[in-house]
Amino acid sequence: MTKLYVVGTGPGDIDLVAPKAMAAIKASSDLVAYGLYLELLGEVCEGKTHHDLPLGEEIGRARLALDLAASGKTTALISSGDIGIYAMATLVFELLDQQLQGKENHPEWLDVDIEVVPGISAMQAGASRVGAMLGHDFCTISLSDLLTPWETIEKRLHACGEGDFVVSFYNPRSKKRDWQINTARDILLQYRPGSTPVLLGRQLTRSDESITLTTLDQLDAKDVDMFTLVSVGNSESRHIVNGNKEWIYTPRGYKKKLV
Amino acid sequence: MTKLYVVGTGPGDIDLVAPKAMAAIKASSDLVAYGLYLELLGEVCEGKTHHDLPLGEEIGRARLALDLAASGKTTALISSGDIGIYAMATLVFELLDQQLQGKENHPEWLDVDIEVVPGISAMQAGASRVGAMLGHDFCTISLSDLLTPWETIEKRLHACGEGDFVVSFYNPRSKKRDWQINTARDILLQYRPGSTPVLLGRQLTRSDESITLTTLDQLDAKDVDMFTLVSVGNSESRHIVNGNKEWIYTPRGYKKKLV
Repeated sequence: MTKLYVVGTGPGDIDLVAPKAMAAIKASSDLVAYGLYLELLGEVCEGKTHHDLPLGEEIGRARLALDLAASGKTTALISSGDIGIYAMATLVFELLDQQLQGKENHPEWLDVDIEVVPGISAMQAGASRVGAMLGHDFCTISLSDLLTPWETIEKRLHACGEGDFVVSFYNPRSKKRDWQINTARDILLQYRPGSTPVLLGRQLTRSDESITLTTLDQLDAKDVDMFTLVSVGNSESRHIVNGNKEWIYTPRGYKKKLV
Repeated sequence: MTKLYVVGTGPGDIDLVAPKAMAAIKASSDLVAYGLYLELLGEVCEGKTHHDLPLGEEIGRARLALDLAASGKTTALISSGDIGIYAMATLVFELLDQQLQGKENHPEWLDVDIEVVPGISAMQAGASRVGAMLGHDFCTISLSDLLTPWETIEKRLHACGEGDFVVSFYNPRSKKRDWQINTARDILLQYRPGSTPVLLGRQLTRSDESITLTTLDQLDAKDVDMFTLVSVGNSESRHIVNGNKEWIYTPRGYKKKLV
């Protein structure tokens, strides 16, 4: 058998890794992942062959995982969060698709038994840490214009505004990209109030987690880096303060029944 | 101490329940949940006091959980999926908000230590079972107009179309609501091709799971019930067939680098 597990390991806290993900890693001889992810996972990774590739080498990483599995090694391709959300899973299937179209020369990939194991994504970790920010319809938008034309991203920002979706921004900023998050803010401000609650969640559920609650008009690139999840409420999201605890929630509409 | 865990237990498969969720249930003396969820969880629920309330009694369930915790009983309010996504978490904070505004008479609720534990949501289970459907920007829309005016839902359907988001429909149909999913389909067909891949995932990751891959123009309410997740691809999502395996993935845009 030739098996490839495509595994999401959640936001960081090892207690948020599904047993199914752990079992997939245990069953594998070879792990393809950033070193940092494996450090968070601890001893389950011991004794496995670890294949690391530099950041930016996503295609190489997906190819390597397919090659290893095709060669008979049970392999786990691992990313944090949900590997199906802005992560490696889609690249595996994109490569498979290329092979099916005859644009690759790796027929052995087609014999690999692929199993995807989902994980808890950053937006969910963030929402849970501040209450229930994703309580009603929401969307996610990646602000990286490396693979997606900025016009497409801008169109989605306007659609998000029009639809009054709660929105979580992935890849809000990197060393080379610093203006997108402020532009996103300015577009959303055309649709919802400056007082709209915003979550900045950095290194969520990890030992160096930091959580900042702010408002849309105060959102600024200077407070955001590549480890930050930015979630913006919809026009009904509420920021509430109970003593020294602060929460953000997005109501589903029970209010009329409550009062 | 007075503690309320608000816990999501994932789509159904016990191996997709986070250890943190299990630990929260173990630590609780009282569980507030539908009976079915607890059956799926098995022995961790043994010896606990189980408080069930009929479907539709969501407000009562949230009140009861706050009351139990405030009375000193460590309590877990449980739902399947992610309890922060179209589920009970937001109601707990809505009630807390009402109390903070003096519209309730339960000051004891304000002393409850609330902790939300996220879970894997149905859209993630569905996406992983068919490949990588959520590989790029996506949104979720609940089609239930019990709490949300249909005009709002319709506005979001158009925004989803304009923004070319992958979309997962929650609450697509119930016994009393049968037309919404077909209307949603007709709206999306104004924006994306009839051949757009669609996933119908029923009872995902459970023993009676069924998964159907179809297309937007074939989507019909007759194939959907209240246990079905409906996910519709964006205009670039691909349905591929490899022997007897079928997949849907949504590319992130690596293609230009691949070829």
